[in-house]
Amino acid sequence: MSGVKPVTDLFASELSVVNLGLESFAENLRECGAPAVQVRWKPPAGGDARMIAALDRIARSTRVDVEAANALAAERILKSKPMLIGVGVALDVVPGMKPNMVLHSGPPVTWERMCGPMKGAVIGGLLYEGLAKTREEAEKLAASGAIVLEPCHHHDSVGPMAGVMTARMPVWIFENATYGNRAYCTFNEGLGKVLRYGAFSDDVLDRLRWMETELAPVMSAALALHGPIDMRSLIAQVLQMGDEGHNRNRAGTSLMIRELAPFLVRLDEPREKIAKVLSFMHANDHFFLNLTMPSSKCTVDAARGIEGSSIITTMARNGTDYGIRVSGLGDRWFTGPAGIVDGLYLPGFGPADAAPDIGDSVITETAGIGGFAMAAAPAIVKFVGGKPADAINFTLSMYEITVAENDAYQIPILDFRGTPTGIDLRKVVETGILPVINTGIAHREPGIGMVGAGLVKPPENCFKDALAAFADAIG
Amino acid sequence: MSGVKPVTDLFASELSVVNLGLESFAENLRECGAPAVQVRWKPPAGGDARMIAALDRIARSTRVDVEAANALAAERILKSKPMLIGVGVALDVVPGMKPNMVLHSGPPVTWERMCGPMKGAVIGGLLYEGLAKTREEAEKLAASGAIVLEPCHHHDSVGPMAGVMTARMPVWIFENATYGNRAYCTFNEGLGKVLRYGAFSDDVLDRLRWMETELAPVMSAALALHGPIDMRSLIAQVLQMGDEGHNRNRAGTSLMIRELAPFLVRLDEPREKIAKVLSFMHANDHFFLNLTMPSSKCTVDAARGIEGSSIITTMARNGTDYGIRVSGLGDRWFTGPAGIVDGLYLPGFGPADAAPDIGDSVITETAGIGGFAMAAAPAIVKFVGGKPADAINFTLSMYEITVAENDAYQIPILDFRGTPTGIDLRKVVETGILPVINTGIAHREPGIGMVGAGLVKPPENCFKDALAAFADAIG
Repeated sequence: MSGVKPVTDLFASELSVVNLGLESFAENLRECGAPAVQVRWKPPAGGDARMIAALDRIARSTRVDVEAANALAAERILKSKPMLIGVGVALDVVPGMKPNMVLHSGPPVTWERMCGPMKGAVIGGLLYEGLAKTREEAEKLAASGAIVLEPCHHHDSVGPMAGVMTARMPVWIFENATYGNRAYCTFNEGLGKVLRYGAFSDDVLDRLRWMETELAPVMSAALALHGPIDMRSLIAQVLQMGDEGHNRNRAGTSLMIRELAPFLVRLDEPREKIAKVLSFMHANDHFFLNLTMPSSKCTVDAARGIEGSSIITTMARNGTDYGIRVSGLGDRWFTGPAGIVDGLYLPGFGPADAAPDIGDSVITETAGIGGFAMAAAPAIVKFVGGKPADAINFTLSMYEITVAENDAYQIPILDFRGTPTGIDLRKVVETGILPVINTGIAHREPGIGMVGAGLVKPPENCFKDALAAFADAIG
Repeated sequence: MSGVKPVTDLFASELSVVNLGLESFAENLRECGAPAVQVRWKPPAGGDARMIAALDRIARSTRVDVEAANALAAERILKSKPMLIGVGVALDVVPGMKPNMVLHSGPPVTWERMCGPMKGAVIGGLLYEGLAKTREEAEKLAASGAIVLEPCHHHDSVGPMAGVMTARMPVWIFENATYGNRAYCTFNEGLGKVLRYGAFSDDVLDRLRWMETELAPVMSAALALHGPIDMRSLIAQVLQMGDEGHNRNRAGTSLMIRELAPFLVRLDEPREKIAKVLSFMHANDHFFLNLTMPSSKCTVDAARGIEGSSIITTMARNGTDYGIRVSGLGDRWFTGPAGIVDGLYLPGFGPADAAPDIGDSVITETAGIGGFAMAAAPAIVKFVGGKPADAINFTLSMYEITVAENDAYQIPILDFRGTPTGIDLRKVVETGILPVINTGIAHREPGIGMVGAGLVKPPENCFKDALAAFADAIG
């Protein structure tokens, strides 16, 4: 033990202090003239002993190489090439779709536990399919058990907000050109009173019927003339044009219009019919959202089921629960209560009108765009609240919980840095930094529609529960 | 003189130094332990005695109130509402246009002094009009004096690069809804081998003929169906979508397509003809440039001819001279040598191939967009060179030489600050900060075309000469 001095010597020598923890200790020393360096450090997982133990078990695991598994998951996300290849009818193309089935957003949820806008959208879906004639009939039918309610995610699909998809609805068909997996999504209806926000009045249903009988066939024919559309290329471009692909899609919708317009014109259809399709797209900047969503689904699904990978491959909400799935944990959902959105409201509405967080659109964040790419879309703060600097900081903080940067999706203002991609469950729990999500807000009652947009935090416990399960699985 | 101490006391007292000029004086003092504050100060006009005298005379003028005159000029710029109201043929609608006339960009220039690409474009214009059959015939005719060569700016018009406009060419017609003045501009041909970059081969002329016989009539009819288009609103939007309206116009072109597509479809024309028009627009992101230019011209022209105003109302280059005009100095041009562009070159080309700075497109900067709004378009650095931080700094520095901020044109990343607007000649000379201009680069020889894009500085002397004249005028 030579070299060790008695502790009393300490007070006679010059101090150079490195302080961890409470910063006031360092401040006091500095005030006394002693140099003190404060280390920015927080206990992992906020000091949660169960989580620290789980992180330890994972770090010490000799059974699987989590880093290698995550690198493979990230590689599959980055190499995915989602292509829009066509339009079909849900019953014909969506795996497992049935005439008496209503798909919804988020993790599984029973009719009884569904929030208002999701109930509204299910009612609307049943009316649209002709399975019920009135709201009351639809509610009775939905509660009867005769209708199969399942998550879109269980059918290779995603849906914004309530995310309701029924058998007759037209869907976009995506294929991952690298890995071959497919993804599906309904068409976007626009903003305001729409099915996905829980409205089901006649005008909502009439629009859905027009989408089925005119919009979708026309789009299908134009797309067939055009050929498959490389969504990775389009998303790369919109990130240079102020979109982030979740709640700002003005550039994306514009690019789709200019891409398809020459082919729409060439169709052997009445001019007015084509003009109506173009006007519909022009009037709805969220048209592109229902393309970024299946594009993102198609991308992250390629990273599912990799043993030992702690990459989050699904995040989704149904307005009641927020759920995640993890690559190395198969199809198991980990859920927590859906949060309340902090945002800007349409005139006449406020937080008391808001349904909790809802929709599969958080698949964009899961794939590294949306809230994760907000630095590319500073103007979005006019829609979801906050300052442009917040948008940049949100993106920067997401690098803390991801394992890769997507060179295909560059953010100009960050010197063309790639978007933060591949959320590592371990990092979320260890840092306590939750994924940033921007989202629309639905009215809490069925039948009303959109009331605002903002930012929302996922519930921490679903990440913690998943981490505990992950530690069990590989321990 | 009580209170004045002998200078020898100075060395006995504690010093608190404020240093102007060479910073090393302050540094030396700081090294000796004396507190010293360095004032960031440069002599006005770089110490140019003639300019300092001119600035003094202007500041002391009692004949006119320059501040009030500039405030009026700025108000007229900010209140201008440029509307795209139609399409016409130059001979029919452009004031003073004649069959034997060729309009060009920049200040006046004779055939002999024209740069290569402008000569090429004049040759192309004469071939297009059928006034000559060969390059040689055209050159002879242009040199003969039988053709009137005048600046676009003398005919309420602007033209990008060589800016050649001839009698048969179709033009966009703009009207300032607030002040009634009009502005005109040809249609954009695309990039590469095009007339405005000095190319005049058969394919260039064939395209111009298609633009005259198909594109323009179709656009005219669609615009008539649609009604006037509010360009201020469109430009406001593109600044939130990564465009700056000069060399980045991808968002603007996209918005024009989505705006007009439903009306193009409704025209009683063959589908293939309309499809070709839409494909042409889709293939050319500079389509919108020929709309931002006359929009800017229409805007700043409203501020011309205000007595006592030192606001610059025209900047323009012809590849030989760079010229400016000042509100309070009427139609007089002040010119200096056109600069060499510092930029990125297309494969196979380099600085030795470049013609000097050319085109009326700097009217966008004159109106407060383009280079002045580069902070809104960080991705433009991939086209013109530099880093995203440069783009932001360029915009910030332009606030130093302008008198207003345009609340209609907001830059998200600068917390939605309005673009720097209304260049004050006095501030340019006093600070030595020259307007930032981004631009395309033409090959120096006639007949070749575009070789790159970059940034260019205007010649300092034209601002100094103008300031001297301004001081004379109001002194």
